[in-house]
Order: sequence, then C-alpha cells, then structure tokens
Amino acid sequence: MPKLSQPRTKPDFREKLRKKVLQIGRNLIEQEGLEAVQARRIAKQAKCAVGSIYNIYSDLDDLIIALNMITLAELGETLRHAHAASAGKSTHDRLLALAEAYFDFAAARRKHWRAIFEHILPEGRTAPPDYRSDQDRLFALVEEILDAEIDEPEQRASAARALFASVHGIVSLSLDRKLGEFEPQATRRQIKFLIGCMSKGLNVD
Amino acid sequence: MPKLSQPRTKPDFREKLRKKVLQIGRNLIEQEGLEAVQARRIAKQAKCAVGSIYNIYSDLDDLIIALNMITLAELGETLRHAHAASAGKSTHDRLLALAEAYFDFAAARRKHWRAIFEHILPEGRTAPPDYRSDQDRLFALVEEILDAEIDEPEQRASAARALFASVHGIVSLSLDRKLGEFEPQATRRQIKFLIGCMSKGLNVD
Repeated sequence: MPKLSQPRTKPDFREKLRKKVLQIGRNLIEQEGLEAVQARRIAKQAKCAVGSIYNIYSDLDDLIIALNMITLAELGETLRHAHAASAGKSTHDRLLALAEAYFDFAAARRKHWRAIFEHILPEGRTAPPDYRSDQDRLFALVEEILDAEIDEPEQRASAARALFASVHGIVSLSLDRKLGEFEPQATRRQIKFLIGCMSKGLNVD
Repeated sequence: MPKLSQPRTKPDFREKLRKKVLQIGRNLIEQEGLEAVQARRIAKQAKCAVGSIYNIYSDLDDLIIALNMITLAELGETLRHAHAASAGKSTHDRLLALAEAYFDFAAARRKHWRAIFEHILPEGRTAPPDYRSDQDRLFALVEEILDAEIDEPEQRASAARALFASVHGIVSLSLDRKLGEFEPQATRRQIKFLIGCMSKGLNVD
C-alpha cells in the first residue's frame, strides 16, 4: 500500500530528526553554552542539510525555545517535588523550600539554566503560548502557597512573579559572579534573608 | 628639549586613543549591544591597528570592564541623587526611591545597563579591585538606609546585596520580557510589593 505508507513514513522521519536535533542542541548548550547552538553546527552533527532543520523549526529562536522548554520541564519537576515535600509546612518554610530548590537546580544545571535567560526574543516577537503556559504552571506552585496570605488572584499572581524574580536575581547575580566570587553559603544566606523578611512582611497589615 | 618632550607625547597619544576607543565602544553598545564590541571593529573606526588597542587594554574583557565602569559611574550618580532626595524619609520610602531610580535607569539606558550583566568573566578571572570598590560605594547607599534596622555590619552588607539582587531580578526579567510582555506598570507594582513586604518584614522580630 504505497499510498498509505508514504505519508506515514515522512512524519516518522521528521520526528526522529526533531529528537536528534534537540539532543545535539542540548549537548552543545551543556558543553559550550547557548551561543554554540547554530543551525550549521547541528546540521553537521546530525548529518542533514541546514534546510532540514528549518523544515522543523521556523528559525533559530524557535529551536532555542524548544530547547529551553525541555529545561523548563526539568525545572518544573524539581519545583513540584519541593512543593509536594513541603506540604503542610508554614508559608515561610514552603517558599524557602522552593527558593532553595531553584538555586540548587540553577547551580547544578548552570549552562542549561542560563540559556533560558540569555535567550532574548527579537523586539516585537512574543513567546509561544505553550512556553507561557509551562511558565504559568510553575508560578501556580508559588501562588498556591500564597493563597492564605493574598486573597485577590491578580495580586497573588503578581506577588508570585515578584517573589520568583527576586530569588532569581539573587541566584543569577551570584552564579554569574556579579557581586563577587561565587560563594554558595553567601547566596543561601541572601535567599534566607529575602524569604524571611518577605514572609514576615506578608503577615503584617 | 627632545628628550623631555618624547616621553610626554607618548602618554598623551595613548590617553587620546584610550578616550577614542571608549567612545567608539560606548557607541557600539548603544547601537547594537555588547556583542558588537570587537577589537577589529573598534580599530577600524579609530583608524588604528588592533595591536594599539591591546597596548591599552590587555584583552577584550579588560576593555568591556572599562566600558561597564562608565555605566556604573552614571548609575551611581542616579542612585546618589535618589538617596539624597529621600533623606529624612522612612526606610520604606528610601528603599523604594532607590529601587525605582534603578528601574528608570535600566529602562532608559537599556543596552548599556544590560552590558554590565551580559559580560561574564572567564572562570578563574576576577573583576579588578576598582570595579568592586565602585560597586561597594553603591551598596553603601543601601547599607546606610538599613543602618537603623540591622546592627551587625556584615549582616547589613549581605542584606543590601540581597535587596539589590531582588530588585535587579524584577527589573531584568521584565525588561528582557521573560515573564510576558514588558509592562512598566506591572514592574512598578512588583517592585512596590517587594519593598513593601521587605520593609515591613525588617521591622518585625
């Protein structure tokens, strides 16, 4: 049945190449960082034409977003674990558990984690809906913890993003050695200070 | 007096070229961002040999640090102004004034500001003492505001860095459109939430 098998084979080949391209992309990030993710280099390693990559991903930004979504999924697993493990604890302890899990993930998977933030979309272009909904699911973990403290959903969403961005700021400036050499203990101390003050502040009217 | 004039002329030429190189470097950042700062491009515009640039700066990292120190000095002026203008106000109002001044500076001077954080020194290399002491002078502004709340100097220094990193996290994720499109009002709201909780939390034992 050549008429039936033909359309079946093509998507199969495409799917195999897609997986191969992603694996090569991930290795390049792991070894050299985001700037190594170039269609030419990936095509060479995948033994395919550069055009075949652009049959799957419309451009390099599209491919990088796909790579970053894999890291985001791994981060999500780590954060969901910390969220579940801290169930029943105080708001302070739960926020601290998430913040520390984020720091540990970033420190252990530094190049992959950095690629998420190094990649800046060209002006006028927006991230795909899938990417934003993956992100929103992660923020939902923080929002759930803040549920008791902040009633209004929009305010709670904004607070969760502010808290995440604050922890991210501490983590990224220290991993990038922007405020001095990287000292994990100093970073943990800053995270504890932030979460300590924030959770006290949340409970004061 | 040729023997006297000769050593005088050389540093003079060197100083002129240094200023020219910095001005060209700044223009390149302004127009295209940090990745445009390349010795070859600067030499072409300065009408000098690439080697002449490396007579002044030992390598590209050295030149980029010099460029970033100019931005740091401008940021310092902005923050010192906000610090002075808020003298006598509450801890909350003073921290908020500094945080908002930081956001306004970053938004207005986006490419120069981003260059400070995009530049990551190679592993094993440390920032020059001048760079760190410029930074320390900026942190001293925050430390002075925290003086009434945190007695212990080392703890105060750590708190000032944690606060800065938190505000920086909010500012950079929103300017880089990492959590959605850039909406200045949403960013200001997150900054207010952070400073609001933090200053309440600082005053609770």
